[in-house]
Amino acid sequence: MSETPARGDGLHPDDLPIREELRGKSAYGAPQLDVPVQLNTNENPYPLPEPLVERIAERVREAARGLNRYPDRDAVELRTALAGYLTRTTGHPVTTDQVWAANGSNEVIQQLLQTFGGPGRTAIGFEPSYSMHGLISRGTGTHWISGPRAEDFTIDPGAAARAVAEHRPDVVFITSPNNPTGTAVDADTVLALYEAAQAVGPTLVVVDEAYVEFSHRPSLLPLIEGRPELVVSRTMSKAFGAAGLRLGYLAAHPAVVEAVQLVRLPYHLSAVTQATALAALEHTDTLLGYVEQLKDERDRLVAELRALGFEVTESDANFVQFGRFPDAHEAWRKILDRGVLVRDNGVPGWLRVTAGTPAENDAFLDAVRELKKEQRA
Amino acid sequence: MSETPARGDGLHPDDLPIREELRGKSAYGAPQLDVPVQLNTNENPYPLPEPLVERIAERVREAARGLNRYPDRDAVELRTALAGYLTRTTGHPVTTDQVWAANGSNEVIQQLLQTFGGPGRTAIGFEPSYSMHGLISRGTGTHWISGPRAEDFTIDPGAAARAVAEHRPDVVFITSPNNPTGTAVDADTVLALYEAAQAVGPTLVVVDEAYVEFSHRPSLLPLIEGRPELVVSRTMSKAFGAAGLRLGYLAAHPAVVEAVQLVRLPYHLSAVTQATALAALEHTDTLLGYVEQLKDERDRLVAELRALGFEVTESDANFVQFGRFPDAHEAWRKILDRGVLVRDNGVPGWLRVTAGTPAENDAFLDAVRELKKEQRA
Repeated sequence: MSETPARGDGLHPDDLPIREELRGKSAYGAPQLDVPVQLNTNENPYPLPEPLVERIAERVREAARGLNRYPDRDAVELRTALAGYLTRTTGHPVTTDQVWAANGSNEVIQQLLQTFGGPGRTAIGFEPSYSMHGLISRGTGTHWISGPRAEDFTIDPGAAARAVAEHRPDVVFITSPNNPTGTAVDADTVLALYEAAQAVGPTLVVVDEAYVEFSHRPSLLPLIEGRPELVVSRTMSKAFGAAGLRLGYLAAHPAVVEAVQLVRLPYHLSAVTQATALAALEHTDTLLGYVEQLKDERDRLVAELRALGFEVTESDANFVQFGRFPDAHEAWRKILDRGVLVRDNGVPGWLRVTAGTPAENDAFLDAVRELKKEQRA
Repeated sequence: MSETPARGDGLHPDDLPIREELRGKSAYGAPQLDVPVQLNTNENPYPLPEPLVERIAERVREAARGLNRYPDRDAVELRTALAGYLTRTTGHPVTTDQVWAANGSNEVIQQLLQTFGGPGRTAIGFEPSYSMHGLISRGTGTHWISGPRAEDFTIDPGAAARAVAEHRPDVVFITSPNNPTGTAVDADTVLALYEAAQAVGPTLVVVDEAYVEFSHRPSLLPLIEGRPELVVSRTMSKAFGAAGLRLGYLAAHPAVVEAVQLVRLPYHLSAVTQATALAALEHTDTLLGYVEQLKDERDRLVAELRALGFEVTESDANFVQFGRFPDAHEAWRKILDRGVLVRDNGVPGWLRVTAGTPAENDAFLDAVRELKKEQRA
């Protein structure tokens, strides 16, 4: 809370009647530092192309003329466009009633946990993974279980299935490609976990595909067919280069979409958000062209980091996990001292770097090259 | 779910492992009917003026150029502008660190309940009132108590304080002006309830002022001074004519703002929402001019409804509660048959009509005049 000046009364949240489990906690979020090269939050480095910027202004102008009215509560036009995008890019037919959208995939996940998790229920993820799965679970009163990953950060289907059998979760998160490791999960593993989860009772399995457009492998979305307890969540933050838009969505059986509508705040998705997302979806091909460039840059980062002698986790995302460091946080600081901000996700020995523009990646590689030299000296 | 076609498998949310308390429920929301005169959701009937529409397009264009980056997580520029608006219109100095903003006041309320309510805790409101207070309480696992109102829909301080003493809530909602009745609450009543609430232990008191710009009375906002457990919530949906924007906010002690940041989803407020709200705040004076027109129309509705022989609840909002009907829903349908959509909020004997444009209000008055004739016939 850097913008909050100290008050004369010195009152702190802990002095208010907040929930016990929030006492002593601090707000989640990556440090927002003013550094020349920011490769810490897996943003897409390419600004939206100018024709798309103009199209957004045009569609928002149109939406603003009706802004005195509530937005379409069910966001039908947007969900139809997202269904079209999923159908086109996965080859699996997805209909409007199978898609739901919210303010970022975080809100999608929160709605799923309010519906299928919550007090008295349990969710599991295989960590290290996207930390918001655990945080939103706790925020919705869902008991959180940290499931295991193998040494190479893949999910071992046997170990994962045993954890599911032991903890009997109501919600299972599978992140593919995984954040912060970059690791993709194959369909067989997802199916094995789906079976293991249903074996202990009906269980929602959420496959978080926030980074799937950057993957070497196809989307797991076709697995939703005939599996009403399987949900795929997506975002426009990464491949669509629209982190500032906060547009997350899911694809699942229509009954899942109807179910989350029982907990969604009415009119949760503003008319300007809907208009902006629709404009971006009109420019899908251009944006997916940037994704191809970023995949090449990601592969270059992996190759060059390995050539420098770093260990690198296989990456199917727009970021790369590299190490190992005796003290990852010290290494993070030394890279920062060279004007490059990467992410210390708290995975001992490892750091994560987002694939930026070629020039940004060069700056990063220069910084870690110097770090390596220093280590050798 | 009118857009959801029946699926071959006929699966329903109740067939999925949703939470027990959601079983058999249907999604909240006013009917969205295609009717010439829509006076059912308390929207502002005046579209944004064209210079503001252009300014929104301009600011969103600027924001779209950086849309690949996450938005300002703490929305500092927007909160500063909202603090300036509150200071100017209430005469009470409000600082940036006393203001928080989210996607509609519904999300503000949800964040407050996640922080100060939740499982094992209790919230109370004095009903009939804004039904989302109860719905979001239940959605966050907070036990909901329906507190009493007097026959004339005012809050009786003694009866309300007794309910507080009996139920020992953690969160107290006071809606002023109240929806759906239009009733304002005076400062003495709020202070009496605040004292009664603190007497049973530290308790958050939320004064929901969604409609306060339409009130004959000044805002209750100055009461936050020296009362860290008192929160005032607001929205841009009504006075700013921006229901489609989904921008709610609160003013309170900075410790409350810090507290809700413990539960807010990171980057919950999109860059386009922030840009659009900032544009609207630049045009405050024009928009408050529309508010004055609507207050006149609201007063005209009250006078004409009374002249027609209806009972009308005193209104400080942009809507009017009128009755009484032996069967309010039947009366609602008969008004709808005449092309005018009003709201049946489930208050036995009463309906609610939003103050629209003069022409819309004339159409409404014609419809109820005919209804009255029919009743007499």
